[in-house]
Amino acid sequence: MSRERVIQIERDILGKNNGIAAHNRALFLANDLLVFNLLSSPGAGKTTLLVRAASELKRTRPVGVIEGDQQTSHDAERIRAAGVPAIQVNTGKGCHLDAAMIGDAYRRLPPLTGGILFIENVGNLICPAAFDLGEACKIVLLSITEGEDKPLKYPDMFAASSLMVINKIDLAPLLEFDFGKTIEYARRVNPNIEVLLVSARTGEGLGALYAWIDRRAWHQRRAVEDIR
Amino acid sequence: MSRERVIQIERDILGKNNGIAAHNRALFLANDLLVFNLLSSPGAGKTTLLVRAASELKRTRPVGVIEGDQQTSHDAERIRAAGVPAIQVNTGKGCHLDAAMIGDAYRRLPPLTGGILFIENVGNLICPAAFDLGEACKIVLLSITEGEDKPLKYPDMFAASSLMVINKIDLAPLLEFDFGKTIEYARRVNPNIEVLLVSARTGEGLGALYAWIDRRAWHQRRAVEDIR
Repeated sequence: MSRERVIQIERDILGKNNGIAAHNRALFLANDLLVFNLLSSPGAGKTTLLVRAASELKRTRPVGVIEGDQQTSHDAERIRAAGVPAIQVNTGKGCHLDAAMIGDAYRRLPPLTGGILFIENVGNLICPAAFDLGEACKIVLLSITEGEDKPLKYPDMFAASSLMVINKIDLAPLLEFDFGKTIEYARRVNPNIEVLLVSARTGEGLGALYAWIDRRAWHQRRAVEDIR
Repeated sequence: MSRERVIQIERDILGKNNGIAAHNRALFLANDLLVFNLLSSPGAGKTTLLVRAASELKRTRPVGVIEGDQQTSHDAERIRAAGVPAIQVNTGKGCHLDAAMIGDAYRRLPPLTGGILFIENVGNLICPAAFDLGEACKIVLLSITEGEDKPLKYPDMFAASSLMVINKIDLAPLLEFDFGKTIEYARRVNPNIEVLLVSARTGEGLGALYAWIDRRAWHQRRAVEDIR
């Protein structure tokens, strides 16, 4: 198959996905729902972060989670154990969630009007960057055990994300991790990316993340009211 | 595009890759070269491991490295700084190395007859599993900071690998990582997978890895002699 033909096929797949993502986005806005697409390498701590964040945020609004993994339903079970509705999507051979999977999973969640939907994508710093799911924004999680160079080595993911959450800061005393260098690298590929430092394990820094989410919710509500 | 059409395209791409991989494999065997395809999540420690292993192994045989990353040539520079020839392959939007990239990069390395070629794949626990590069075997690196469940959540990668190297064991006293459970999960998807525990940072466990590599070299040489 020619290189040109492969590129055309990629365009067709992404074009079809973007149409469904636009439909998802309109539905989410109509339901006053704030949707985050959470991305990282495998094992960076997305589920641990979500268990804590969903438990806290559900005290004041509806919260739901869609979990993406190649196999297993462990992550959805961890979320449900915290009293938060969760739908597991298994991608099989697939390396990312797509907008159609999210549309289907969303219909299986209870109503979340006025609340927050977290989508935990498949652990993969490459492929999910290209797929719009209809989210308000992408959030990339980077754990300090992965090293400082990841924003430069996987630039598409950091360019596509509005927020970089640096996780596992409780391990900082044991590692030679340079926070300044990491943030500089991330801003080299995305000058507008915001940055928060957290430990999903100890809870350190999560207050600032909840405040960031509240600001996003306020801005989205304002934007929707302006349209209406 | 229909699901059937997408599957057919995937088959065409993999079929073409497998043809080139078979050609690479014949060339590697003709050159008495042992080739490992090293796979992991981003930041699991592949390059740190390779810097140490290549420095040690080159004392007794030629060693070369092909480095795969979406962007940057940092990793090849780290390998070259250890006095080992290295070729960087940047995949751009691509999420894995393919056999044609390896064929091209191999021609740019100095002769390695009787030695070892390490291929460090793009950091990704999904897509590279499907692509044969012509290697003798795949080695998957899992760092203990990623959690025990990765073999079940990304089963294709662990099913495709002959050896699982569990890295960052120097951090074990600080984490609640269950080695037995991880090995059990890996063997559930691949009953034949071998397991080694190392710290690429401190060097702990690397002697066993070098012994494992020496055994593989001996077996490959025997197999090639049997054919001739």
